Amino acid sequence: MSEEKIPYKIYLEESEMPKQWYNVRADMKKKPAPLINPATLKPMTAEELGAVFCEELVKQELNETDRFIDIPQEIQDFYKMYRPSPLVRAYCLEKKLGTPAKIYYKFEGNNTSGSHKLNSAIAQAYYAKKQGLRGVTTETGAGQWGTALSMACSYLGLDCQVYMVKCSYEQKPFRREVMRTYGANVTPSPSATTEVGRKILAEFPDTNGSLGCAISEAVEKATTQDGYRYVLGSVLSQVLLHQSVIGIESKTAMDKYGIKPDIIIGCAGGGSNLGGLISPFMGEMLRGENNYRFIAVEPASCPSLTRGVYAYDFCDTGKVCPLQKMYTLGSGFMPSANHAGGLRYHGMSAILSELYDQGLMEAVSVEQTEVFKAAEQFARVEGILPAPESSHAIKVAIDEALKCKETGEEKTIFFGLTGTGYFDMYAYGAYNDGKMSDYIPTDEELQKSFNTLPEVK
Amino acid sequence: MSEEKIPYKIYLEESEMPKQWYNVRADMKKKPAPLINPATLKPMTAEELGAVFCEELVKQELNETDRFIDIPQEIQDFYKMYRPSPLVRAYCLEKKLGTPAKIYYKFEGNNTSGSHKLNSAIAQAYYAKKQGLRGVTTETGAGQWGTALSMACSYLGLDCQVYMVKCSYEQKPFRREVMRTYGANVTPSPSATTEVGRKILAEFPDTNGSLGCAISEAVEKATTQDGYRYVLGSVLSQVLLHQSVIGIESKTAMDKYGIKPDIIIGCAGGGSNLGGLISPFMGEMLRGENNYRFIAVEPASCPSLTRGVYAYDFCDTGKVCPLQKMYTLGSGFMPSANHAGGLRYHGMSAILSELYDQGLMEAVSVEQTEVFKAAEQFARVEGILPAPESSHAIKVAIDEALKCKETGEEKTIFFGLTGTGYFDMYAYGAYNDGKMSDYIPTDEELQKSFNTLPEVK
Repeated sequence: MSEEKIPYKIYLEESEMPKQWYNVRADMKKKPAPLINPATLKPMTAEELGAVFCEELVKQELNETDRFIDIPQEIQDFYKMYRPSPLVRAYCLEKKLGTPAKIYYKFEGNNTSGSHKLNSAIAQAYYAKKQGLRGVTTETGAGQWGTALSMACSYLGLDCQVYMVKCSYEQKPFRREVMRTYGANVTPSPSATTEVGRKILAEFPDTNGSLGCAISEAVEKATTQDGYRYVLGSVLSQVLLHQSVIGIESKTAMDKYGIKPDIIIGCAGGGSNLGGLISPFMGEMLRGENNYRFIAVEPASCPSLTRGVYAYDFCDTGKVCPLQKMYTLGSGFMPSANHAGGLRYHGMSAILSELYDQGLMEAVSVEQTEVFKAAEQFARVEGILPAPESSHAIKVAIDEALKCKETGEEKTIFFGLTGTGYFDMYAYGAYNDGKMSDYIPTDEELQKSFNTLPEVK
Repeated sequence: MSEEKIPYKIYLEESEMPKQWYNVRADMKKKPAPLINPATLKPMTAEELGAVFCEELVKQELNETDRFIDIPQEIQDFYKMYRPSPLVRAYCLEKKLGTPAKIYYKFEGNNTSGSHKLNSAIAQAYYAKKQGLRGVTTETGAGQWGTALSMACSYLGLDCQVYMVKCSYEQKPFRREVMRTYGANVTPSPSATTEVGRKILAEFPDTNGSLGCAISEAVEKATTQDGYRYVLGSVLSQVLLHQSVIGIESKTAMDKYGIKPDIIIGCAGGGSNLGGLISPFMGEMLRGENNYRFIAVEPASCPSLTRGVYAYDFCDTGKVCPLQKMYTLGSGFMPSANHAGGLRYHGMSAILSELYDQGLMEAVSVEQTEVFKAAEQFARVEGILPAPESSHAIKVAIDEALKCKETGEEKTIFFGLTGTGYFDMYAYGAYNDGKMSDYIPTDEELQKSFNTLPEVK
């Protein structure tokens, strides 16, 4: 199709929307290492995982062979409420930069949760409901995942118990109120509702909480209440599977218009967005059908891929979850307090870690002041106020487009715009006031954190 | 087209998007009364209006004869960045209500400003730029209009000076930061930057400000700085003209799928959304080609159509703007402090006032607690967190759908969903905490306010 015919925004028809998720592990010759039971140091069995996670999700977590997994009709119906998400040609940004590059982005912020998290939240809630459970428990930091899960549970009539890191609960009340509007039970963590919470409160009565503690409370609550399981919004392979809907829609739309990306860029925290975005493209590369450059972008203040080690580690600071082999900074790592957005997880998805280790994907880290500068630049011409997380990808997309300007290359650059920044205006305010600062952990700090890694041969 | 074929969301192709705005006044036999100069009590001339407003916008304001006005290509290009907006079939809400009615809504919240205001903001900014102006001034309350205008001005490289009611500036910092991110100059009003501001501050040093005072400051700033004009986000006929893009897109999509609404519902503050939504449908009715029921929904705490008088009044509490004949509560009217959302304007668009007076449109008022109840109900099944303003329309759409449930009628109900409630979470929080209250002004209060009406024969 001629260049002139490509619209600003490409929306698939409902009939073109994916009916199956894509499981990139099926095309990986060397698979990600298995989850390990910290007590036995043996691979986690389905039965062991089933005490914490829903049955069907355990199957998906362990499924390394089926290339495609059917999306249940009920989930397809829910997807239709806010999907397909648009694939946008960034004509205005290209013009502003004066680049010969063609820039595209897939925008996942057009739903009340404001991010891509909803793609997996509805799937996880659906399987919990199908299993006859009463509800699910989870943790949330800033609240994107909790918001998405609340929406999904409200839709399905499932109880939703969210442990929200106390300082976020108090200082960022907006997402808390969104969750409550969707009927979720939101508890500041640590709380007196769990044994682990009471223990921490007794020892540190003035603590502001941490994600690790919130995970521990959510897992305890899931395993001690009848009819509950724990759900998680990133990192796990099942989450990347559900998020493949982003990449599949993108690829379908691109194929329809004859667009072939040279570079595919996504921000990376736990890896769910990036994994979902790149998976069908990566699949082509793994099968030798096509070639792409993949770039994971992470914050310089939490650089798991670029400065971490590839080793077995705890998935949570509370050390209640299975061990996973991944690029990690150590489960004791906490990003500096001046780190504004998400992407603060100490580790990385096992799938992405393995692909990165095999040299199939690049990674770069960027500092937050330049990320907000890119965000502002993007917002002013493209009319979307991006989430700080998504803006990491914007920053690198702009960098790559400016390289094309120098070389004159007409590369096609594609990035994932995971969400909106409506609930991050304090951070934007700090940037507007010139009060944003950067932080890069020292080698000594990282080494100290690596010392918290468990010994697994 | 068969019922089964109607998708959840209908997006027009770019080629189907409107290339002209529709001017409903051209089809009105009895036109709205002219704007009047408060000094001379004669109709405002183009020259007089040109001191405050941009030339091309003055022409549009006074144009009662051209049915269609071309949308400049630059504005069409900007529209493509966030339009077409989806026409959504509310399958989930229908199912939840158990109604045989078919419910559709046009969702205008899919852009960073979060509302339909951007449709007119880009048009007004474009004509200001085309006139060679340096910038525009405006006022904003909660900030929807100011946000939209900031985005439009940033895109066009135009200076944007926003006077924001002081209490909103301080208590609702998020929209302020969005405006600043888009490069706008945001000043809490009253301020020391204008004569009228200094005068008010001298008299009431502790005032929280008011919309009327902010308008006065913005108009003073526009008329005393070289290369500036004042722009307004609602009420004016030019704004309804720009907002007709909502109705035209809706009608094109409905015609394409053979959908014919029986009832069309919109919330009404100054009338820009409602006027834009209904105009092409109203045009058909005015030309005798079709019949529809139109319902304007306003807050019981600010009931200009349902309890106001149809008379000439000041458009602003500062009394610096022309007089307009409209349904009004008197320019001295202030909605009770417990009123949460927008829709707090004392008057109503002249076009809508005239249509209402001719019996072509109905109006109802609703109380805010039931509005938030409808908002919550909608959010939980439709997955969009609606703005409090939009939720007035949702409330009445649900009421009408429930009437259909009783009678068994399969009516087609269509309403405008003007925006999202992301920046209204304090109000949602009050509702979630059971702390929301209602207020209906007494007849005595209204009478007192009517006494502020100017004497115009």
